[in-house]
Amino acid sequence: MNQPIVETQYFTFAKSPHEMVLKSGLKLGPITLAYETYGTLNADQSNAILIFHALTGDAHAAGYHKDSTTPGWWDPMIGSGRAFDTDKYFIICANAIGGCKGSTGPSSINPATGKPYGLSFPVITIEDMVVSQKYLIDHLGIKKLLCAAGGSMGGLMALEWSVRFPDSLHSALLIATNYKHTAQQIALHEVARQAIMSDPHWNNGDYYGKELPAQGMAVSRMIGHITYMSERSMEEKFGRKLQDKEKVGYDFSQDFEVESYLRYRGSSFVQRFDANSYLFLSKALDYFNLSDKQGLQAVFKGLKNKFLVITFTSDWLYPSYQSKEMVKAMKGNDIDVSFIEIDTTYGHDSFLVEIEGQSKLVKHFLENVAKPVFARSVSDEAI
Amino acid sequence: MNQPIVETQYFTFAKSPHEMVLKSGLKLGPITLAYETYGTLNADQSNAILIFHALTGDAHAAGYHKDSTTPGWWDPMIGSGRAFDTDKYFIICANAIGGCKGSTGPSSINPATGKPYGLSFPVITIEDMVVSQKYLIDHLGIKKLLCAAGGSMGGLMALEWSVRFPDSLHSALLIATNYKHTAQQIALHEVARQAIMSDPHWNNGDYYGKELPAQGMAVSRMIGHITYMSERSMEEKFGRKLQDKEKVGYDFSQDFEVESYLRYRGSSFVQRFDANSYLFLSKALDYFNLSDKQGLQAVFKGLKNKFLVITFTSDWLYPSYQSKEMVKAMKGNDIDVSFIEIDTTYGHDSFLVEIEGQSKLVKHFLENVAKPVFARSVSDEAI
Repeated sequence: MNQPIVETQYFTFAKSPHEMVLKSGLKLGPITLAYETYGTLNADQSNAILIFHALTGDAHAAGYHKDSTTPGWWDPMIGSGRAFDTDKYFIICANAIGGCKGSTGPSSINPATGKPYGLSFPVITIEDMVVSQKYLIDHLGIKKLLCAAGGSMGGLMALEWSVRFPDSLHSALLIATNYKHTAQQIALHEVARQAIMSDPHWNNGDYYGKELPAQGMAVSRMIGHITYMSERSMEEKFGRKLQDKEKVGYDFSQDFEVESYLRYRGSSFVQRFDANSYLFLSKALDYFNLSDKQGLQAVFKGLKNKFLVITFTSDWLYPSYQSKEMVKAMKGNDIDVSFIEIDTTYGHDSFLVEIEGQSKLVKHFLENVAKPVFARSVSDEAI
Repeated sequence: MNQPIVETQYFTFAKSPHEMVLKSGLKLGPITLAYETYGTLNADQSNAILIFHALTGDAHAAGYHKDSTTPGWWDPMIGSGRAFDTDKYFIICANAIGGCKGSTGPSSINPATGKPYGLSFPVITIEDMVVSQKYLIDHLGIKKLLCAAGGSMGGLMALEWSVRFPDSLHSALLIATNYKHTAQQIALHEVARQAIMSDPHWNNGDYYGKELPAQGMAVSRMIGHITYMSERSMEEKFGRKLQDKEKVGYDFSQDFEVESYLRYRGSSFVQRFDANSYLFLSKALDYFNLSDKQGLQAVFKGLKNKFLVITFTSDWLYPSYQSKEMVKAMKGNDIDVSFIEIDTTYGHDSFLVEIEGQSKLVKHFLENVAKPVFARSVSDEAI
């Protein structure tokens, strides 16, 4: 079945004098969220699933935009008969604040100055990103999500939603994620940030309408891509294959396919993503720590939601042991949590490309979550 | 026992018209090698061990330079009663060509122009680096090394020596190394190179006497340090500890200790290492592939040397499986090889810091290698 044509929608809120108060204490407003929906919201608003994207993702999770041949970033997972079945569920995906794909971020115009925020954009957190999307869900008239779901940064957001608004969702699906950013995860982000900030064209964040910090963005993206793959998947895909020569060139032009691949991915990144957004979003991830105050066990106390936690054997950026610690703390609270580690070679990218295994698990999980919820709706209607 | 004061020595060869022909076909000369020795060469030159350093290492492997409190990079392993026991063995360590610690490299003066080579320095290979050190060993009057040893890049060099000059050594000690650079190893180097080359001060390699490419070097070194540690050692050393604040700063200054550590290591790197040397040496590593022509099994055919191969469980830059492939190919040739994987959390850095376990293994290995060799010398003397 062909995937539908979809259109991005926009919701603006937190207008003066009702700006949103951020975790830092600073205020942000007005805030616009770009979002898309797939499927139909049922009469009692009980079939809504909120999907959160990863660091450089956007609201376009499925289907096609008019006159575009590029499907949404999780298209194989969302649609009629797919894991997130649009025949049954109403799927929502919004671009995170701090991003650059339609939602308010550092490249947005600051209404107070008429110029892009740049570095004057307030530093946001995963918590702020989640709270801003609660405004959207309220706006759509949804009292309780069937599920909050996401991989990588999206997983952190789904996790944060489930502990911050536990009464507003039935379940959470956490894929290739963590309950806090670790030293290595922070370190890898910090190198990427330093690469961007050391590009003279970054110009302290003031580059809009000028030359872009392309070189810094390229280096940051190359680091990113290495961390998204696995040692094995890089070896299987590239090995020591040469790009376009019979033998090595004995110079610093590109010899190996893996070099060309990374350079291409790196150089094209600046065209599709805003450098300041990369700084703000990566910082939000690094600040995330669900276990900071009372410890992880206490955070999950009293939660009645169902959880499905998925990891991938070859994911060294968000290794399975981190999710296992989270699952252990959930189980210590008698939470209904299933944990599955899928055997893949794709590394962290697995959550985007390992469709078959995830689809089965997600479909089954959502059916189990939906069964009592939908049964309740029917009986409500019968009364 | 106090370690001795040592002095770096210099050996110059390959003078016109006897320049060394490199693997690329280009010529290099004159070549100077900076080297140090520890212990005393015995009468029949049978107790010499050649140690190769890693990427940013130098000839100063042990002891102290006059008026310096900095010991050599492998000092805990080399000395009286230590693994490389200077009471028994004569240890040699030379700075690799392409480097910047006294041996001929891109920062050396090109006698043809009177200016630093910069990018006009010919691209060198691990093979070239090894061949150049054979000149030194010949110069020292040593016909057959007791052992060629090294970790990381030094391991590649020891391996290359053992297959290129099999009659000139009794044994090789290969630590945390590989028989070819893999896609991920190439990728990590390529990002580091791009970080350097995208710094405007790099200026196509022509920065000597001008402003140095400090930012590019810093980013490249930060990447390096992440790969030299392990996920676990970073977590144990830094975790989410904050640098100097009660709480996070909600800005892009340094929040976490791991960020400060990497920034410090990054910013100091340009003072101690030459950017062009980093490019040339990393490229030499990436070109290394012992299995390219006839396959690995054939490369080891007929070798009579003893090998000790050591890896570390937490080393994800040179993971153990790569050494195991090499050991398997050696065993297929009935080579006398021992393989030990040491359980550590230090990652690739283990070869520099995990002293106790390595010392036992190395001491035992060298004694076994030396026993028949030294016995032969004694019986030769008796005749």
